[in-house]
Amino acid sequence: MADFVRLGIIGIGNQGGNYSRCLTTDPNWCPEIRLAAIADRNPARAEWAKANLGEGVACFSDPIEMLDSGLIDACVVSIPHYDHPKYVMECMKRGIHVMCEKPAGVYTKQVREMNEEAKKHPDVVFGMMFNQRTNCLYRKMRELVQSGKYGRVRRANWLITNWYRSQFYYDSGDWRATWSGEGGGVLLNQCPHQLDLWQWILGMPKKVQAFMRYGQWHDIEVEDDVTALMEYEDGHTGVFITSTGDPHGSNRFEVQMDGAQLVVENDQLRVYELEALEQDWTKTNRQPFGCVPGRSFIAETDGENPQHRGVLTRWAAAIREGTPLVAGGAEGINGLTLSNAMHLSAFTGAPVTLPLDEARYERELQARAAASRRKVTQAVFADTSDTFAGAR
Amino acid sequence: MADFVRLGIIGIGNQGGNYSRCLTTDPNWCPEIRLAAIADRNPARAEWAKANLGEGVACFSDPIEMLDSGLIDACVVSIPHYDHPKYVMECMKRGIHVMCEKPAGVYTKQVREMNEEAKKHPDVVFGMMFNQRTNCLYRKMRELVQSGKYGRVRRANWLITNWYRSQFYYDSGDWRATWSGEGGGVLLNQCPHQLDLWQWILGMPKKVQAFMRYGQWHDIEVEDDVTALMEYEDGHTGVFITSTGDPHGSNRFEVQMDGAQLVVENDQLRVYELEALEQDWTKTNRQPFGCVPGRSFIAETDGENPQHRGVLTRWAAAIREGTPLVAGGAEGINGLTLSNAMHLSAFTGAPVTLPLDEARYERELQARAAASRRKVTQAVFADTSDTFAGAR
Repeated sequence: MADFVRLGIIGIGNQGGNYSRCLTTDPNWCPEIRLAAIADRNPARAEWAKANLGEGVACFSDPIEMLDSGLIDACVVSIPHYDHPKYVMECMKRGIHVMCEKPAGVYTKQVREMNEEAKKHPDVVFGMMFNQRTNCLYRKMRELVQSGKYGRVRRANWLITNWYRSQFYYDSGDWRATWSGEGGGVLLNQCPHQLDLWQWILGMPKKVQAFMRYGQWHDIEVEDDVTALMEYEDGHTGVFITSTGDPHGSNRFEVQMDGAQLVVENDQLRVYELEALEQDWTKTNRQPFGCVPGRSFIAETDGENPQHRGVLTRWAAAIREGTPLVAGGAEGINGLTLSNAMHLSAFTGAPVTLPLDEARYERELQARAAASRRKVTQAVFADTSDTFAGAR
Repeated sequence: MADFVRLGIIGIGNQGGNYSRCLTTDPNWCPEIRLAAIADRNPARAEWAKANLGEGVACFSDPIEMLDSGLIDACVVSIPHYDHPKYVMECMKRGIHVMCEKPAGVYTKQVREMNEEAKKHPDVVFGMMFNQRTNCLYRKMRELVQSGKYGRVRRANWLITNWYRSQFYYDSGDWRATWSGEGGGVLLNQCPHQLDLWQWILGMPKKVQAFMRYGQWHDIEVEDDVTALMEYEDGHTGVFITSTGDPHGSNRFEVQMDGAQLVVENDQLRVYELEALEQDWTKTNRQPFGCVPGRSFIAETDGENPQHRGVLTRWAAAIREGTPLVAGGAEGINGLTLSNAMHLSAFTGAPVTLPLDEARYERELQARAAASRRKVTQAVFADTSDTFAGAR
């Protein structure tokens, strides 16, 4: 076994650029990975890479040339969403381990194809960059929900409106917030993490109904305001509300269960633990205004929240030692299914039952992409290292 | 002017019973009002009144006899909801000032008739028992929302799921939680306060769409789980979620505005005040991930939250001195319109545009009432004095 994984990065815009900086400037950031090459079609980014990443990093303008170079064992795909499945599959076909940025793709049909390809390459370690799964609060919440000790879920409610983005942000890339460039708005760009956590913690619903506003708070053609209702097989419901237009929004995720209320907010997981499951307690209660007694506490966690570094470290370990990933690549389709179902419901004004009609969704999306108003803008690159801090 | 108002109460079940206790045992509770008479058809309650309220309180089994007795100047109507308009109008026709318990009625058509009758009696002081309007937190929130300093509302979200009720509660009265007895569930019994506050603070939407579960968490025929989406003329939205089935629920009311976020939760009004309205700030912002700067604080209020006592005191002052009420009687129709619109949307599976088709709603409701499964139960009376404490 080599001492480290030789990494390539396709796309060193905001996110890929951060990885390349961290890997080349901080030897402790992820010691099992060494940056060997990058590929970016944008000449300005390639120049930046040559000037900043050191002589040990080969720079390519063509991603395929990098994949064929023999310089890398593993590759991060960090480009606009539509092309994620394409380059992930190019990696797989060459036996190169691959980490896909979120979302897995723009529509589930292309992601299903990617997952089918993955099955043909069992030796390729395929991961999804669901860095929020490393957050101790969500890991603890999942553990409590799935432990069985609190019974079943009764309701889930995620108000995730602290994704404020300015008009300048949207104007900073011609692909941003367009049907042809991103295939959606807040659901495709900001929320893939929360949609993944939702399904990771709560499972998949059977029915989705969503209400969206397109360009309600910005001069963009895609959604920047979403309210979605989800219904589960056992009758419980969930509401997911998001926006990039709330100038100071919230991030509050509540799960009500038979025997507890769990709330992640303000960097804490608060638990209200009942002394009994409600359905048991109510059988003998004789107080008209009685409630199940209980107690409130802040859940203890391991305090770890290593984010992207944690996902890459676990990926390197999976490659070198076969240990489990933070998120397997094939799991990316679930959150995207929620996202696509929300869009389809909003497009058609009707509830959408899962499994999703993927061909119909692709048609609806392509019709919008064909009519897309591609913006003329000056690309701006930004340090995003502060934008994924966690549950705040 | 007499030294005090001579009060009658129709119905001394839970709520009316509390008033009668407070007025006869604590001379400082509401000194401008003296309890002169009560009327209750239930012999057990009349016996209780004779034994507990003192010789100065006349007891009637027939409310009309009490109204015709000449013993009272003013009357509280505290009986099951369907009969609110009927007895309120009986008071008005006799020139007796009247305070109606929430909700104003069960369907807006009967409340509109009551409001028409009120116009014929301008000297009758007609109030609604919207005691939550006396809560300093909601008064302050309304003041801030309507002040104009924070611009327009962008989103409102009320998660009001701390209305847990046990099966025993529902079994404690044969009228409870039936279409024929209450005309609905959590929206008619528990939420009239919040629906009134919603319209009092935010105004009326143009469109309502609601999703309900009937008897999801209890053996009842009416709704105990509601998610409602509201849309306003200017494009902003609101979500209202309530239930009596969450064993430990929440009460969190958030209003997002152009220049502030306001949250009432845990007996506090938290304000995040931006340095500028978002639409002004974004014009000159050149940071891709920038947000409008601001600061967070707990709003100062007058700390007053006199609840029912406050409503009755202001009503007595209005009768004696012509000062303003906490809530005029005619305003009761607004919250009930929201409630009826939510039911109509859930009944029909479609959004409802306001103004409401009141005749259609009455038909839909009456059809359900006609098929109602009236329970056989033993009536239980409870001390509700702890159930209306405020914003907790």
